[in-house]
Parts: sequence; structure tokens; C-alpha cells
Amino acid sequence: MNKNTKFTAAILIIGNEILSGRTKDQNTSTLATWLNSIGVKVNEVRVIPDDSNKIIDTVNHLRKNYNYVFTTGGIGPTHDDITAESISKAFNLRYEVHNEAFKILEAYYKPGEFNVGRQKMTWMPSKSNLILNPTSGAPGFNVENVFCLPGVPSILKSMLGGLKNNIIGGEPIKSLTISLSTVESEIANSLTKVQEDNNDVEIGSYPFFQAGKLGVSIVIRSENQSKIDKCKSQILEFVNNKKIKIVDR
Amino acid sequence: MNKNTKFTAAILIIGNEILSGRTKDQNTSTLATWLNSIGVKVNEVRVIPDDSNKIIDTVNHLRKNYNYVFTTGGIGPTHDDITAESISKAFNLRYEVHNEAFKILEAYYKPGEFNVGRQKMTWMPSKSNLILNPTSGAPGFNVENVFCLPGVPSILKSMLGGLKNNIIGGEPIKSLTISLSTVESEIANSLTKVQEDNNDVEIGSYPFFQAGKLGVSIVIRSENQSKIDKCKSQILEFVNNKKIKIVDR
Repeated sequence: MNKNTKFTAAILIIGNEILSGRTKDQNTSTLATWLNSIGVKVNEVRVIPDDSNKIIDTVNHLRKNYNYVFTTGGIGPTHDDITAESISKAFNLRYEVHNEAFKILEAYYKPGEFNVGRQKMTWMPSKSNLILNPTSGAPGFNVENVFCLPGVPSILKSMLGGLKNNIIGGEPIKSLTISLSTVESEIANSLTKVQEDNNDVEIGSYPFFQAGKLGVSIVIRSENQSKIDKCKSQILEFVNNKKIKIVDR
Repeated sequence: MNKNTKFTAAILIIGNEILSGRTKDQNTSTLATWLNSIGVKVNEVRVIPDDSNKIIDTVNHLRKNYNYVFTTGGIGPTHDDITAESISKAFNLRYEVHNEAFKILEAYYKPGEFNVGRQKMTWMPSKSNLILNPTSGAPGFNVENVFCLPGVPSILKSMLGGLKNNIIGGEPIKSLTISLSTVESEIANSLTKVQEDNNDVEIGSYPFFQAGKLGVSIVIRSENQSKIDKCKSQILEFVNNKKIKIVDR
């Protein structure tokens, strides 16, 4: 584990559709990759149902244990969209119309189209900061260290650019992957030695199947490029000694 | 929320590769779909790092709160594979060679290939039940209500067939999806009424983009087919009244 990382985040996926297996979560990967790039490390992800008490308890736990919490899902206009109301309760804030969000959506829709369903999307915890939505109008919101984003992956993605200035991170977390035509047990001992010699760098080993062949990807992660380079040269040394082929992946 | 479901599960994804964003989790969807089919409902998913204390604490929390816990990842031969040792600690059991697993892998590999790295995969909590692996030999294991599976999706999938008889579930959870060419705000009020009239059925509403068009999938879930049918007819009634087109998806 990398002990130098100072900024941590948890992701909270709110949605029965992930728990039922119907939908595969894509937002964790999007958020984690983006957070790494701004020096924030995701240390935990939870997926929970559309259940108000569960949302309140989980948000209150996570926001005390991580620098940032990002929630996805449950901020649309239908009955199962209960994130904004639940976050209000978690923070003991009023759940009310956000005037700026109201103006944004009033201007976004054609006259007569801004119906009660759509107006529900302007109800938020009082004093929320808005997270602008360049794709479909309805903003997300931020209270203290909790950032609430929609569940639709393409919309979520489009909102991250506007969020960047609100997040203080450390050095970007860099990673290097070395993919080998071998099996894990062939390199396990050598890799353990490299990890022991570089205990502040995160080294992972991941078997894969590609075009019918077994392989292993070794992933080195740190915010310090020279530490990554040191691990790399130690790994390439045993790879060469064992005459293991490096493969593209 | 469906209040009749008696059997619950949590999924614990152990792996830095998911938290880093490098790999998208596929196992939640596989496990949840399979568990639904045998009448077990997944109520929570957590993704945590390859960190022994975190694994121990999380497993001990989840196993007391759900009927079943399924872990994925961390049971291979390399230094970052610490699931078996951590589960031993969580249950206060010895971490030792499992004789049956040893025999299986000894027979699986060619003479001389069953090296120390591979032998690591036979170390488990004492008295584990094995979960057989028809793909790559190395078995998973089960202690009380905790079932430990590998992280590689194709291998995990191949092991579920052998697990079925170890899991007691309820009625399979059925689901029905109705996809509409509309937006959520057009149907929000009508759908709320259907949910209120059928409060023991889980009704979700999920916007989508398909071929450049907006749509909404309504998903009805219950173990009781007649309850699903009742919701379906109520939904189709307002869909017809509003002249909304049903689409394939």
C-alpha cells in the first residue's frame, strides 16, 4: 500500500439496478481514473439499494472516514430517486428548491415543459453547491465533502470537468503495466522480493487470458515516477533472467 | 423494497485493480444474476483494497448482517493474494494447507510443476469446504456463510454451478422490463402511483440513450409473478393513455 497518499475518496453507488445484476457499474472506473489523475485515491466503493436509511447511514459513515465521497444515481425525477432527500437528512439540512438550479432548468426546457416531475430535480439539501451538467441540464450538487452525481455514465462523465476546481488532491497517481507471457506462480517469489524492497509502492499481479493464451499483467502504482522506474527495472531484471516474453496488452 | 425476500447476500470485491479504475468489475453482475435465480437478493456490494485489516473488519461485519457473503479476488499465488489468510484471521482459524486442495492441484499440474507458488493456493482457513474450479484447478473455499471465489470473471463463472447445492435460497426473483420512448418526467407521477399501489414490489426507472434517442426502462422485480403482472398492466394502462411507444431494448 502506498503510504504517501494524502487524499482519499469513497464512491457510493446508489441503485437497485446494479445490485440486481441488470446493469454493470461503469461509474467506479470513470471516477477512479479521473480521481487518480488529480491525486485522489479511491479506497472504498459501496453499492447500496434505493433505501433512505441505508443511504443516510452509509453517507454519514463514509464522509467521516474519507476526504471525499462521490455518490452516483438517484437524482432524477422518479419515485426511486431519493438521493437528494436522503443527503439532506444525513446532513440535517432542509430539502428545498434550489433557486439557481430552478433557473437553470427553467431556461433549459421549452416553455410549458418544465413540469412537476422535472421540478423535482431542483429539490436539494439547502445551501448545496451545484455541479453543472452540460449534457442534460439537471445539475448535481455538493454539500461539504459529498458530491452527488447522476447514474447515467455518459452524463456523469460530462460533469467531471466542471468539478475539478472543487477537489484538492495530491500528486497524480501514475501507473505502469508490464504484461508477460507467463503464469503468476512462475513469478510470485521474484515479485514478492520486489514488493518487499519497495514497500511504499503498490504492485499488483493480475492473470489474464488473451487470444487463448495465459498471461500476467504486473501493475506498479505510485505518485512518484522514480519509484515506479526502480520497480520496473527490478521486474525487468528477473523477467530477462527467466526468459519470459513481454507482451502487448 | 421487497419485504418478502428472506435470503440476502453481500458481495465483497477485494482488489486494488477495481479501486484504481484499471479494471471494471464484472463479477457483481454475474453473482447477482445467479443469486437472484436461486432466490437470494444482493443487498450490498463493497470494493476494498488488498489490505488484511480491512478485509477482516469488512468480512466480520458483512457475515453478521447478511445470510451469505461472497468474496472475489485475492486467492492466487502472488504477494497481493491475501484473502485466504485474512479470512482465517477473521474467523480465528488456522491458516494451513488444505489436504484435499493439495491433492487436487498435485494431480492437476504436470510432475515438477507444482511449485511453492502454486502450493500457496492450497493454504486456507482450517476446515474450509472447497469450491471446485473446473477451469484452472485451484479451488475456492467456504467457511460458514462466507464463500471465497477468484477474481478472474471467466473462472468465477465456471465455479457457480458447483456451488448451487450449498446455497439455500427462496423463490427465484423474477423481473420484467418495459422500455418506453419517453423521458422520466413524463411518467414520474403515474409511476409513483403504481409503486404506491404495489409497495411490496420493487419498481425502478432507468433513463437510457439508444441510437441517439432518449428512453426509459421500467424494471419490475418480485418473486411473485402475479404481482409483476399486476404492475405491468397498471403501467401499460398509463402508457397507452399517454400514447407512449414501447420500444425493444
